[in-house]
Amino acid sequence: MNDMTGKFTVAIIGGGPAGMTAASRIKRLKLDTRVIVFEKSRFVSYAACGIPYYIGGYVDDLNKLIHYTASFFREKRGIEVYTETEVIEIDDGVLKAKDKNGESMSVKWDFLVLATGAKPRIPPIDGVDLDGVLTLRVLEDAEKARKYVSKAEKIAVIGGGYIGLEVAENLVRLGKKVTLFEMLPHVMPTLDHDVAEYVESELKNNGIDVKTGEKVVEFVGSEKVEKIVTEKGEYNVDLVFLAVGVKPDTALADMLGLEKGVAGAVKIDKRLKTSKERVYAAGDVAETINIVTGKPDWIPLATTANKMGYVAGSNIAGKPMEFPGVVGTAITKVFELGIARTGLTEEQAKENGFEPISAFVTTKTRPGYYPGGKTIRVKVIADRNSGKLLGAQVLGIENVLARINAFASLLFKQGTVYDLFFDDLAYAPPFSTVWDPLVIAARILMRKL
Amino acid sequence: MNDMTGKFTVAIIGGGPAGMTAASRIKRLKLDTRVIVFEKSRFVSYAACGIPYYIGGYVDDLNKLIHYTASFFREKRGIEVYTETEVIEIDDGVLKAKDKNGESMSVKWDFLVLATGAKPRIPPIDGVDLDGVLTLRVLEDAEKARKYVSKAEKIAVIGGGYIGLEVAENLVRLGKKVTLFEMLPHVMPTLDHDVAEYVESELKNNGIDVKTGEKVVEFVGSEKVEKIVTEKGEYNVDLVFLAVGVKPDTALADMLGLEKGVAGAVKIDKRLKTSKERVYAAGDVAETINIVTGKPDWIPLATTANKMGYVAGSNIAGKPMEFPGVVGTAITKVFELGIARTGLTEEQAKENGFEPISAFVTTKTRPGYYPGGKTIRVKVIADRNSGKLLGAQVLGIENVLARINAFASLLFKQGTVYDLFFDDLAYAPPFSTVWDPLVIAARILMRKL
Repeated sequence: MNDMTGKFTVAIIGGGPAGMTAASRIKRLKLDTRVIVFEKSRFVSYAACGIPYYIGGYVDDLNKLIHYTASFFREKRGIEVYTETEVIEIDDGVLKAKDKNGESMSVKWDFLVLATGAKPRIPPIDGVDLDGVLTLRVLEDAEKARKYVSKAEKIAVIGGGYIGLEVAENLVRLGKKVTLFEMLPHVMPTLDHDVAEYVESELKNNGIDVKTGEKVVEFVGSEKVEKIVTEKGEYNVDLVFLAVGVKPDTALADMLGLEKGVAGAVKIDKRLKTSKERVYAAGDVAETINIVTGKPDWIPLATTANKMGYVAGSNIAGKPMEFPGVVGTAITKVFELGIARTGLTEEQAKENGFEPISAFVTTKTRPGYYPGGKTIRVKVIADRNSGKLLGAQVLGIENVLARINAFASLLFKQGTVYDLFFDDLAYAPPFSTVWDPLVIAARILMRKL
Repeated sequence: MNDMTGKFTVAIIGGGPAGMTAASRIKRLKLDTRVIVFEKSRFVSYAACGIPYYIGGYVDDLNKLIHYTASFFREKRGIEVYTETEVIEIDDGVLKAKDKNGESMSVKWDFLVLATGAKPRIPPIDGVDLDGVLTLRVLEDAEKARKYVSKAEKIAVIGGGYIGLEVAENLVRLGKKVTLFEMLPHVMPTLDHDVAEYVESELKNNGIDVKTGEKVVEFVGSEKVEKIVTEKGEYNVDLVFLAVGVKPDTALADMLGLEKGVAGAVKIDKRLKTSKERVYAAGDVAETINIVTGKPDWIPLATTANKMGYVAGSNIAGKPMEFPGVVGTAITKVFELGIARTGLTEEQAKENGFEPISAFVTTKTRPGYYPGGKTIRVKVIADRNSGKLLGAQVLGIENVLARINAFASLLFKQGTVYDLFFDDLAYAPPFSTVWDPLVIAARILMRKL
């Protein structure tokens, strides 16, 4: 909790979800606080998750990806926002920032929120700096990508995670010839193999050339990228999207000498305070607690970033609050397949010392007699010894969100297989079968306990 | 737990979800048990929830509403099933049943599962016995209704609950002129007034003449019903559907002298045992625990009936299991509006001694930049003193199930407003906004605590 009274200055580094939510929260609770946000890019409060859909033309105007503009925060919320301004020096109580014109400014801060987010991983291979090898993180990347895409035909996406899949789908929608490379044996490493198989089929059925277990070793080109070399072959390409994951952007954390934890993310306590007094970290730059394992983990997602910003802001503004952690829920859609997961995969469960049992249920979203039912697949993982729920993966085109959110809620409350069986889920013919697929999975698992 | 060893006979009265699930469960756990099911109607294991859709022609064949036939249970599961057979006498250890031909049989039973379900409430008003005043419960009712509907033009539905609304919608779909009477001030008494208003608009916008706060006092007709008389006026009709609720069918429970509880339903313990040794009750005939209030309640639903049957069967077959209760989750759809609820309404919360606070959020199902977002409304009710979640009501056409199931899961685990705020719900642009409507509601409620 803060021991300040009266006016103070909070510097927030990073204008993404965590930073802007923290800023707004502080101003709401303590209007007389000076809140200053520094953001490297041109935009604050933007929807990075919308970038693939902007590339695919689903979203026509980049400005639509901006929730609130910098002017809005300045005028309506009284927050000082500096865009295109980078913090270049930081020390206890003072920081120095430089804007795009090279003008620099010094700010004395009483509290700091480090919300610098994450940045794309760049594999250390030859040719990765070539023109036409793109990454996607901020809106400027999206602008650039759309221009490159308009001139390309054969496009490679490196990485079969959420971003990779979403970009690949959107490129197909534009009529591009898309090859997806994933060095692991299956796409979507956050799913189990038996689930990921269906995702791969969906990609292939929609014309994506999926190369799993194939590591890219070099990009080749004279002026721009022209060829990809993998362990198994060579491929001519016009354009490459690198989507092999992200890592916490900790340059400033290092400058401050903050302790780091899982995956190199900034270590924080339940109040989101770092190892340094009056310095908080929130969003993708910070680690969190995985409620399922009880251990620190790093699961960078926008929803979590928003809530962490809220908690950090509350604590700084004198309203103590703890962030309980996450269970690792995520969802995406490729073509006609919704893909959702939460908690641990079977593999992750083993790695964490559990003895996983699982049930894989394939059923329909409505009773046989009611028209329009679609296939839905639910995999549920639990611990044989304790009956504790560990994770779930859901595939389908209808009411996937319902299943993952119900399961995630029980997981968040550390529920058991019995809780899942008795959970009072809604049923009516237009929405579900009388035995919900989650309940069927629980029924199967009860027999294995 | 049962103290029987070796072979024994279980008599199950009622072939609906509770009865047939209990029967199957017992046979699965103890194959050498003799399991006999008595069912008054022609059908067992049927989907009563599908009846309105059969009337509307959504479902063309009545047989499609049957999950499994009596022959299936006989041949595949070794269960003795007697349809069109009524239990007419019952005493400790013995019962007498009579089939449609008047043939009677006596059975000695070691265990009994009373799964006689519920039956329509018939208001004690003049003319209620007239031809053309119909109720809907079993498949035979559906057959009869479809014939009557084909010859009717002006149809009245009495009762604005789930069945009433579903029947009204299906009649409109058939081109009928439909008037819906509800004696209470708003339709859907399981919703709060501010939520029910939207349901009424949906009904009216689709051509249903909605008469709320109007009590029917008489049905008039010579050979068949021709006129409805209410406190406020008279209406000419060709046909009437009575859907003013159901009550537990306890004729046999009374014969056995079983203790009764809430709403006249059979009193049971956590193992679903009645006040008499070796007599279990499951499904709509039995009361249950409302997890939100901690008190006995009567909430007859098919999903619950199935699970109660499973638990009763497990206990009889020597595998002890407790039924934890329900939170009262239900969903339905009228025209283009999904309607879901769980827990207590604001009114019910007051009646149960809580000090309710609520948040009513209207938002879209997708971010503004992603096409196709639909309106969704979420009302969340919590207790001011404890922060405990009490109930939720959701309206919309997309991902209503996701919100009600996530909330119901937290409610089932007795979660708080903070749990709802921090619940790790799934987000991606095609499925949700980054701040889920439930989380927005929690954020509003946190300020009121």
